[in-house]
Amino acid sequence: MRAVDLIRRKRDGGALAADEIRFLVGGIATGEVPDYQWSALTMAILWRGMTPRETAALVDAMLHSGTVIDLGDIPGPKVDKHSTGGVGDKTSLILAPIAAACGVTVPMVSGRGLGHTGGTLDKLESIPGFRVDLDLAAYRRIARECGLVLIGQTAEIAPADRVLYALRDATATVESIPLITASILSKKLAEGIDALVLDVKTGDGAFMATREDARALAESMTRIGRELGKPVHALITAMDAPLGRTVGNALEVRESVECLRGEGPADLMEVSLELAAEMLVMGGVAATRDEALEKGRRSIADGSALERFRKVVAAQGGDPRVCDDPDMVLPRAARVEPFRAGRAGFIAGIRAWPVGQASMLLGAGRARVDSTIDPAAGIVFVKTVGDEVRAGDVIAEVHVNPGHAAAVGETLAMLADATAIAAAPPPKRSLILERL
Amino acid sequence: MRAVDLIRRKRDGGALAADEIRFLVGGIATGEVPDYQWSALTMAILWRGMTPRETAALVDAMLHSGTVIDLGDIPGPKVDKHSTGGVGDKTSLILAPIAAACGVTVPMVSGRGLGHTGGTLDKLESIPGFRVDLDLAAYRRIARECGLVLIGQTAEIAPADRVLYALRDATATVESIPLITASILSKKLAEGIDALVLDVKTGDGAFMATREDARALAESMTRIGRELGKPVHALITAMDAPLGRTVGNALEVRESVECLRGEGPADLMEVSLELAAEMLVMGGVAATRDEALEKGRRSIADGSALERFRKVVAAQGGDPRVCDDPDMVLPRAARVEPFRAGRAGFIAGIRAWPVGQASMLLGAGRARVDSTIDPAAGIVFVKTVGDEVRAGDVIAEVHVNPGHAAAVGETLAMLADATAIAAAPPPKRSLILERL
Repeated sequence: MRAVDLIRRKRDGGALAADEIRFLVGGIATGEVPDYQWSALTMAILWRGMTPRETAALVDAMLHSGTVIDLGDIPGPKVDKHSTGGVGDKTSLILAPIAAACGVTVPMVSGRGLGHTGGTLDKLESIPGFRVDLDLAAYRRIARECGLVLIGQTAEIAPADRVLYALRDATATVESIPLITASILSKKLAEGIDALVLDVKTGDGAFMATREDARALAESMTRIGRELGKPVHALITAMDAPLGRTVGNALEVRESVECLRGEGPADLMEVSLELAAEMLVMGGVAATRDEALEKGRRSIADGSALERFRKVVAAQGGDPRVCDDPDMVLPRAARVEPFRAGRAGFIAGIRAWPVGQASMLLGAGRARVDSTIDPAAGIVFVKTVGDEVRAGDVIAEVHVNPGHAAAVGETLAMLADATAIAAAPPPKRSLILERL
Repeated sequence: MRAVDLIRRKRDGGALAADEIRFLVGGIATGEVPDYQWSALTMAILWRGMTPRETAALVDAMLHSGTVIDLGDIPGPKVDKHSTGGVGDKTSLILAPIAAACGVTVPMVSGRGLGHTGGTLDKLESIPGFRVDLDLAAYRRIARECGLVLIGQTAEIAPADRVLYALRDATATVESIPLITASILSKKLAEGIDALVLDVKTGDGAFMATREDARALAESMTRIGRELGKPVHALITAMDAPLGRTVGNALEVRESVECLRGEGPADLMEVSLELAAEMLVMGGVAATRDEALEKGRRSIADGSALERFRKVVAAQGGDPRVCDDPDMVLPRAARVEPFRAGRAGFIAGIRAWPVGQASMLLGAGRARVDSTIDPAAGIVFVKTVGDEVRAGDVIAEVHVNPGHAAAVGETLAMLADATAIAAAPPPKRSLILERL
């Protein structure tokens, strides 16, 4: 079997067999299929696509390029959630404690933020002491003890994906649905879960900007999960405006704690509870979505979800007082600059993409993989979509430290560009657009 | 400027600017654009194509990745020929001495054979002592003294092409007309020539199997040559049957000497003389094709072409007696096995591709870049297309040494498969199909 012949077949629109895909993925570790052959192949896959059977074989080969964790010794269902990424998307910090409080173990391996989107690991690391670089023994132990655990990718999990992802990033071959499917599922199925819920974001601040692309990805992921015998459900959710009121790592942790206390904003609570409900139904601890939603709400009202979060923060080395007094525990920016309404009216929309870009300029996100992050930096929306404002009213606070102070002017201009003010409020609508 | 952004643009069907193409090609030598980015880019180019302007910029950048030789101190026109490769294609050995004898200097930098096609360098090296690894000083000197020189590619000539060609070969991105155009023209224009004649082969034994592909390549090459201010003409010639009576390195040298003595087969003489005539017209030493053909024929009749060949063989270290007694000078195979007609009739066709494959099995060609060649091995056709045979008549001789004796059976079977015998002779036709 020669890689060049398989590249040629894919280039010409043919399909690869499972053993051929195993050879190609196996060749990443052995060096038998060098990076320049894989990059040509990823471009050919982006061009020609892959059948569901090929994609399933690719997921399987990438999954088995590393350790597939067995959590069979932990009683009860193990379910995780994955989001395709958005601006202000901190639902993992909210729904994982909710699901755990309701009897579903959430063993979550997450990523870091890049570009205009944040990453769960970066948010958690803004909690003093919180460690995400735990080994698989600690991962198991904490998952069992707390019902949830939130760590970064380890070298054991899907190492082939690590190589391929870096290659795709450098060769403009990220935007391929079979390759995205394989990258996400190979990592998630390695966690030892029984089922997976996907949050596929669509809109201005999402990678899948159009509804069609989002649906195609959701369909691919649910179908391939089925082919591999792991139930995968997907919600397509709107990412036109930032989710919740905050963008930036410590600011988002504070908002997550507020949600777990029952004081969170409606849009963020809706998405977090709907995703948690899906996890409860898939995990078999609720018969219907309504029952699951009710269980989730109760875990907020009775404080059990917040207790789960407190427990996991402590187990991972963080300061659990973040649950009682986030402002005391979390880093805060030296300067807070107001962004004010230019004119009176109703906020008709706040485009997520420029808000994500602006928060990156403030140091809250990474322009490059090796950029460092300022955990305190970010943006807090005092007003949000639908609110009425007068000219000069503060719409948002820009939190910035001296190292990024020079970006404030541009940030304010980007916020002005992102914010539409109209004569009438926009119609209210659910952020849950579709369920697959 | 980032390579990934340029790959993305090409991937999406956009065009690259000349300075962007220079950056990409320049990055091969500096390492700024690593091979895995180039291989993704070549796949995107194969997919999306290139405009003539882009292709011209690519040729120019690759040409200037190395030395562009100036032969301005050699008086008279300098014209070369390039063939896209075929089976039994030894026209370079015949037309270069003809053109030189008629007053056109032919400074030829050639390649080696790979797969079913032979290479000029391999044929020449079957002459004892003949050296093709000469430096540029020797190249100039011999071109001036002999009116022709035949060397291999040196490290100075289009080094970017060397890297890209190896990459394309390993990533199934060879079959792209802009990339083929750039590879050929960047090497040929570095030779210091005033004009170029292309022999684009089409048919069973050619890389461009269809007439449409051959025409597209010929059009691309002539157009890009024009854009770069170097006249390029092209003949599209038939490569359905092997050219001439021999396939194999020493065997083809012997046949070339026979041609230069005026004893060559009609098909090979036609293509050699037509290509030489084109060179004479482009070089301005003949006003019309008819005049050029007449001059070429005269250089055979008066022995001046053979003298040129004798001179260059001697200048490049080879035994010039090859011109007098090829059988004495050239290596000969230990065994000659007959291939016989299975039934009576007329030879309707001999498919070139299986003949090329068969000669490769005998050791006359390379299955891989690092295969070694047996210069004596090959096939001699005693009968050819149009000839009448009786059952049992010898059609061809298989020349083989003990190292490849095991391949004789398969070779004979391939020859039987390649040879069609019919009740009536096929219509005669010219091998020159089109002129561009």
